[in-house]
Amino acid sequence: MLVVMQSHATDEQVRSVCDKIESLGLKAHPIPGAGRTAIGITGNNGAVDLGILESLPGVVECIPVTKPYKLVSLDVKSDPTIVRIPTPSGDVLVGGEHLAMTAGPCAVETEEQCLAIAQQLKPTGVRLFRGGAYKPRTSPYSFQGLGLPGLKILAQVRKHYGFGIVTEAIDNESLDLVEEWADVIQIGARNMQNFSLLKRAGRAKKPVLLKRGMSATLDEFLMAAEYVMSEGNYKRHALRTRRPHLLRFFPQHPRPGRRARRKKRSHLPILVDPSHGTGKRHKVLPLSRAAVAVGCDGLLVEVHHQPEKALSDGMQSILPTEFAELLSEIKQIAQVLHRRVN
Amino acid sequence: MLVVMQSHATDEQVRSVCDKIESLGLKAHPIPGAGRTAIGITGNNGAVDLGILESLPGVVECIPVTKPYKLVSLDVKSDPTIVRIPTPSGDVLVGGEHLAMTAGPCAVETEEQCLAIAQQLKPTGVRLFRGGAYKPRTSPYSFQGLGLPGLKILAQVRKHYGFGIVTEAIDNESLDLVEEWADVIQIGARNMQNFSLLKRAGRAKKPVLLKRGMSATLDEFLMAAEYVMSEGNYKRHALRTRRPHLLRFFPQHPRPGRRARRKKRSHLPILVDPSHGTGKRHKVLPLSRAAVAVGCDGLLVEVHHQPEKALSDGMQSILPTEFAELLSEIKQIAQVLHRRVN
Amino acid sequence: MLVVMQSHATDEQVRSVCDKIESLGLKAHPIPGAGRTAIGITGNNGAVDLGILESLPGVVECIPVTKPYKLVSLDVKSDPTIVRIPTPSGDVLVGGEHLAMTAGPCAVETEEQCLAIAQQLKPTGVRLFRGGAYKPRTSPYSFQGLGLPGLKILAQVRKHYGFGIVTEAIDNESLDLVEEWADVIQIGARNMQNFSLLKRAGRAKKPVLLKRGMSATLDEFLMAAEYVMSEGNYKRHALRTRRPHLLRFFPQHPRPGRRARRKKRSHLPILVDPSHGTGKRHKVLPLSRAAVAVGCDGLLVEVHHQPEKALSDGMQSILPTEFAELLSEIKQIAQVLHRRVN
Amino acid sequence: MLVVMQSHATDEQVRSVCDKIESLGLKAHPIPGAGRTAIGITGNNGAVDLGILESLPGVVECIPVTKPYKLVSLDVKSDPTIVRIPTPSGDVLVGGEHLAMTAGPCAVETEEQCLAIAQQLKPTGVRLFRGGAYKPRTSPYSFQGLGLPGLKILAQVRKHYGFGIVTEAIDNESLDLVEEWADVIQIGARNMQNFSLLKRAGRAKKPVLLKRGMSATLDEFLMAAEYVMSEGNYKRHALRTRRPHLLRFFPQHPRPGRRARRKKRSHLPILVDPSHGTGKRHKVLPLSRAAVAVGCDGLLVEVHHQPEKALSDGMQSILPTEFAELLSEIKQIAQVLHRRVN
Repeated sequence: MLVVMQSHATDEQVRSVCDKIESLGLKAHPIPGAGRTAIGITGNNGAVDLGILESLPGVVECIPVTKPYKLVSLDVKSDPTIVRIPTPSGDVLVGGEHLAMTAGPCAVETEEQCLAIAQQLKPTGVRLFRGGAYKPRTSPYSFQGLGLPGLKILAQVRKHYGFGIVTEAIDNESLDLVEEWADVIQIGARNMQNFSLLKRAGRAKKPVLLKRGMSATLDEFLMAAEYVMSEGNYKRHALRTRRPHLLRFFPQHPRPGRRARRKKRSHLPILVDPSHGTGKRHKVLPLSRAAVAVGCDGLLVEVHHQPEKALSDGMQSILPTEFAELLSEIKQIAQVLHRRVN
Repeated sequence: MLVVMQSHATDEQVRSVCDKIESLGLKAHPIPGAGRTAIGITGNNGAVDLGILESLPGVVECIPVTKPYKLVSLDVKSDPTIVRIPTPSGDVLVGGEHLAMTAGPCAVETEEQCLAIAQQLKPTGVRLFRGGAYKPRTSPYSFQGLGLPGLKILAQVRKHYGFGIVTEAIDNESLDLVEEWADVIQIGARNMQNFSLLKRAGRAKKPVLLKRGMSATLDEFLMAAEYVMSEGNYKRHALRTRRPHLLRFFPQHPRPGRRARRKKRSHLPILVDPSHGTGKRHKVLPLSRAAVAVGCDGLLVEVHHQPEKALSDGMQSILPTEFAELLSEIKQIAQVLHRRVN
Repeated sequence: MLVVMQSHATDEQVRSVCDKIESLGLKAHPIPGAGRTAIGITGNNGAVDLGILESLPGVVECIPVTKPYKLVSLDVKSDPTIVRIPTPSGDVLVGGEHLAMTAGPCAVETEEQCLAIAQQLKPTGVRLFRGGAYKPRTSPYSFQGLGLPGLKILAQVRKHYGFGIVTEAIDNESLDLVEEWADVIQIGARNMQNFSLLKRAGRAKKPVLLKRGMSATLDEFLMAAEYVMSEGNYKRHALRTRRPHLLRFFPQHPRPGRRARRKKRSHLPILVDPSHGTGKRHKVLPLSRAAVAVGCDGLLVEVHHQPEKALSDGMQSILPTEFAELLSEIKQIAQVLHRRVN
Repeated sequence: MLVVMQSHATDEQVRSVCDKIESLGLKAHPIPGAGRTAIGITGNNGAVDLGILESLPGVVECIPVTKPYKLVSLDVKSDPTIVRIPTPSGDVLVGGEHLAMTAGPCAVETEEQCLAIAQQLKPTGVRLFRGGAYKPRTSPYSFQGLGLPGLKILAQVRKHYGFGIVTEAIDNESLDLVEEWADVIQIGARNMQNFSLLKRAGRAKKPVLLKRGMSATLDEFLMAAEYVMSEGNYKRHALRTRRPHLLRFFPQHPRPGRRARRKKRSHLPILVDPSHGTGKRHKVLPLSRAAVAVGCDGLLVEVHHQPEKALSDGMQSILPTEFAELLSEIKQIAQVLHRRVN
C-alpha cells in the first residue's frame, strides 16, 4: 500500500499518518518528493483494511501495491501448471505446450441427441465432451436442464465413445452429483462470485473449470480462483502432481490483450469459449483462430448436429463437420506457436 | 420480434423467412419499405428462440420487441407496489409515497457492537436495522461473517430496540436460517444471477431484497426479480396484500437516469445503497440526497459507532450522529417530492 | 511513480532498476517489504516516460502516483473558483455558493423561435441562454446548424432580453466567431480531446465551458481542462479575478458519485446537462433535482416552446412552463445545501 | 422504426400514433399481437426525428430498424473495397485478399532516427512507413510533434527508401500539409467525431485512415466514415477505381468478435493497431497474430530502433528485428486464411 499525501500536507500530517500506520503493527516508509510526500507501507499480510487511512487529514489517496491473490499467482509457482484430465482413453493434458479441445452441445436434451453428436465428433479426434445438465437461464420460463438424468446421459457418452465429460454445477446439491458423474466440474460465469459454491468446489476431488463473470476484472477472477485453491486441495494435489485445479477465462467478448496478460499473473491454464464469447455461429471460427493465435490453452466449442432444433444456444452452435474444419485450421496456427493440440 | 432484411434481399428470401416463422407456429407480418423489408412476428410466448432466423439468407438482424419479464412489469400491475415489513413497532411501508430508511453496520461483529449501534440509531427514528451475518467477501482470507450466532445477535437487536431486521443469505442453507430469524431476506449483488438461490427465495414467506449485480443490465435485473416472483408466492401474497416481494436496485455507481427509468418498467419499489454505491464515507450524504431527489423508495446506509475499528467497510460507514443529519436533509428533500419518510 | 518488483526478484535486479532510475536524473527509494520490494521515484517533473521501467527484469508493474494535471488541481488552488459571466443585466456568478442556470433550445433554428423561447424564459428569472449555431451531429445528413447567422440571432436574444449567451464552437474558425458574438464558449463532448481546439480556446478572452467526453475518465477530462488553462490566460485572468475558465462536467449518464468526487480534485465549477445526460424529457426534472442535491454548480437545460417541431433533440426538450416548475423545485433543494440559485 | 405500444394501450391510442406518423408524410403499419401492438414505419429517409413518438400516450419505446449509414454499408456495395496506395515502389493494395503492413515510430523525432528505422525496416519487405509529425497528447506538457519539419523528414524516408507514408492530421491546417506531403491521411481516435475535420478529409485527394474512438460504438464509427465519404470524393474515386477511402478500426482493446462483425456491415478494409491496442511491447506479437487470424486487412505496428530513448510510446514499440519475426509468423497465419501479405 502506498499513501499519497497532498502537496501542501504539513509535516505534522505526514507524521500523524505514519503514527497511525505503526499503531496498526505495520511499518511506514515516508518518501519525500519535490511536489509531495508518499508513504510506503510494509508488513501487511492482508488482514488490515488500510482504506481508512484515506480519511486522515492531508491524504489524497491510498494505492494498493500487492495483489491480494497468492496461490494462483506466478509469485508462488512460476512455471505453467499442466492439468491432467483422466478419460477412458487416457489423460488429456491442458497447459504448457498442450492445447485441449472440448466440444458438445449447450444442453443435454435427450440421450439420442448426445449420442448422435458424440458419434459425429469422435472421428475429429476431440477427446473432451461438454454439455449442460443444469442450465442457468436468464429467464425462469426457459428450459432449465434435465438434472440428474442429464448427468446419466453424459455417462453414456463417456462409456460408449471414451470422452472425458465437462459439465456445470449450479449449487452445492448439484455439485455433489457432478463430482460423482463427470470428469471436470464447471462453475458458470454467473456463479463466479458465489463464494459458497467456490468453497465447495475447492473441496472436490475433480478439476474445476471456472468461468469468468461477464464483467469481472482480472483481479476479481483470480480472487475467485483463489477461493477454490485456498480450500487446501491444491497442496495435496500438487504433491501428487495429478489434479491441480483448472482455470478458465471466460470474457463475454474475449480480448486477446487480456489473455496475453495472463503470462504475467497466473500459472493456471486458460481456456476460451468462442461460442458464448461471440453468441453468433459465424464468429466461432474467427474467434477460435484468434484465441489460439494469442496463446490460449484450449477451446470449448458448442457443437450440435441439428442447431435449428436446439433447445438453447442454437444460434451459436456449429455442425460437427464445421468443427472438423475448425480443428484443422487451429492445428496449423498452433504449429506457428510450437504447441500441440490434444 | 422484428426481422430486418437486407436492402437487396429477394422476394424469395423474404418469403422463405416468413415460411420459417409460420412453421414455428407463429404469425409473420412483412412490412415492405422503400429501402428494405422488415418482418414483424406475433404469437410468441417466449418459448421459441427466434435467434436462429438470423442465419437465414437475406437477414440482417433480429430485434427483440417484447420484454421477457412479466410479473415484475407495469404491464401486469400498473400501480406502484407497497411492501409491508412487519416489525415489533408496527409495519414499515416501502413504495408509493412511503420512503423507508435502513441503517446499521456492514457486518455483525459482536453483540456489544450491534447493541451499541442500535441504541444510538434508535433516537433518529429509523425503524429497519441492517447487518450481515453471512459476508460474501472478494478474498477468502477476509472476515466471512459470524453465521447463525450473528443472526441471533440481530434477534437481540429486534427484541431490545424494536427494529425490523434486514440481512443477507448466501446459499440455500443460510436462506433457511435468515428466513427464520430476520424480517427481510437480502440477496447480494454477486448472487443476482444465482438462479438456484433466487428460486429458493421465491418460496420464502418473507419479503426479498434483491441487489443489482455490479454490471447487470436493467433487463437482467428485472429477469432476476422475475425468478423470485415466478415461484408463485407473489400471487398468494398479493391477495393478502401483505408481503409482496421487495426489489432493490443496487448500481455500483448509482445513476439517477437509470432509477428514473423505473417508472416505465416495474411496479416494485427501489432502494438505494449509498454506502456500497460510492465506497467512500464523504460521498454517502451527497448520494443519499440525490437518490431521494431522483425518486427512490428508500435507502440502506452503513452506520458504525467506531468505523475505524470495523472489520469491513469502515471506509464507507458513517457515525450515528452523521446519520441523524443525513435523515434531516433527506426529509426536507422528500417534502419537495411530496413523499414521507418512514 | 512506484515500481513494484516480483516477490522473487533478486537484489541485483532491484539494484539494476535503481541504477536505471538514477541514470535518468531521478531519485530511487527502495522499500523492502516482507513479500517483495517496491521502489519509489521522486524528482520527475513529468518529462520522463517511466513506463519503460516495466520491461526491466524483475519488475511487475509501474504505478503512477502523481496526477498529471496541475493548474486545474486543488494542489494549486484550494478554494473553489467563482467564474463571473458578464451579461447586460450584470455578472452571473458560477461556483462557490452560486448555482447558475442556463436554458434554451438545442439548436438556433430561426429568429422567431429563439425570441419566442427567450420571451417565455425571461419571467422565470434564468439569466443565461443556450442554443447551438454550430451543431456537431452524428450523421452528415442531419441539420448542421445555421453558423454565423445563428450567432447573430443569439445576439438579438441578448439585446432584447438581456441574457448572457452560451454557444458551441466546433473548430478554430467557428471559435473566432463565437468568441466575438457570445459570452461563454462551449467546447462539445466530441471535441474534448481535440487538443488543437482546446489550445485556441485557452487563448480566448471569454470563459470556456468544456463538456466531458462520452466515456472520458475524470483524469482525461481534467487534462483537457489543463490544456485550456495552460495557454496562459488563466494567470492573467486570475489576477483580475474576472474570467477564470469555466469547466463543465458532462457525463453521458451523470453519476452523483463522480461529481461528488470533484471536491477532492479540482477547484473549477461543475455544471450538469440533464437534457443530454438523459436524452428523455421525463427524466430531466428528476436528474436536475439529483444534480443539485449532490452539489453541482449549475444546470444547462434544453427548453423549447414547440418541442415536437424542434429540428434536433425535441425528445429531451421541456417547455418553458415546465422549466419554471423545475426551477422552483431546484431552489428548495439548493436551500438544503445552503446555496443560492442565480 | 418500430413503435412498441403498451400491452394495455387502447385502440384509440394506437390510431392516434398512426395518425401522427402519417401526418409526418410516412406510412404506418400496425402489427396487432397477442400481448400488444407494434407499429412499423416506412418511408423515412432519415430527415424526420421519430424519437418524439415516444412521448405519445400508450407508447413504450421506439426501436430504430434501419442503420443510419449508407455509403459505407454493404447495402450499397457488397464486394470488399480494395484500396490502392501509390508508393515509389508501386501500388500497395489493402482489402480483399490483400493484407497491408505498416511500420515505423510513434513520433518523428529527428531525421537520423527516421532514416535509421527505415533502413532497418527496408529488408523486412514492409512497404508503408508510419510516424507522427503532429502528436495529439493527453498532457499539454508532453512532446507535441515537430509539425511541418517532421513531414519533410518523412518525405526523406519516402525518397531514400521508397516507402509510402502514413501520418496524422489534427486540424484543418495540418490536414492541408499532410495531404501535400504524405500518401495516407490518418485521423486519430480522439478526432473520430471531429466532424469539421472529417468533412475536410473527405475533400482530400489521398486515402484516409480513420481510427476508431476509444469507446465509440460500431455505428458511431461507421457514421464517422460516412462523413468522410459523403463529401463526394468517393464516387469520383470509385469511377477511377484508384483511391477509395481507407477505413481503419481502432479499438482500444481490439476484440476479434467486433472485427469479425465487419463482414456484415461495411465493405471498407479494416486495419488493426496492435501497439496502441495493447500499450505493452510483449503483447504486440500475440495481438498481431490474433488480428490476422480473425481476418483483418492489415496492421500498423510501432517500431523503434531505440525504444528506451523514444520520446513517446517507447513502452509499446518493438525492435526492427522483432518486427521481422512478427512478419514471418503473420505470413504463416495469413496462409491458413488464403490471404497474401503485401
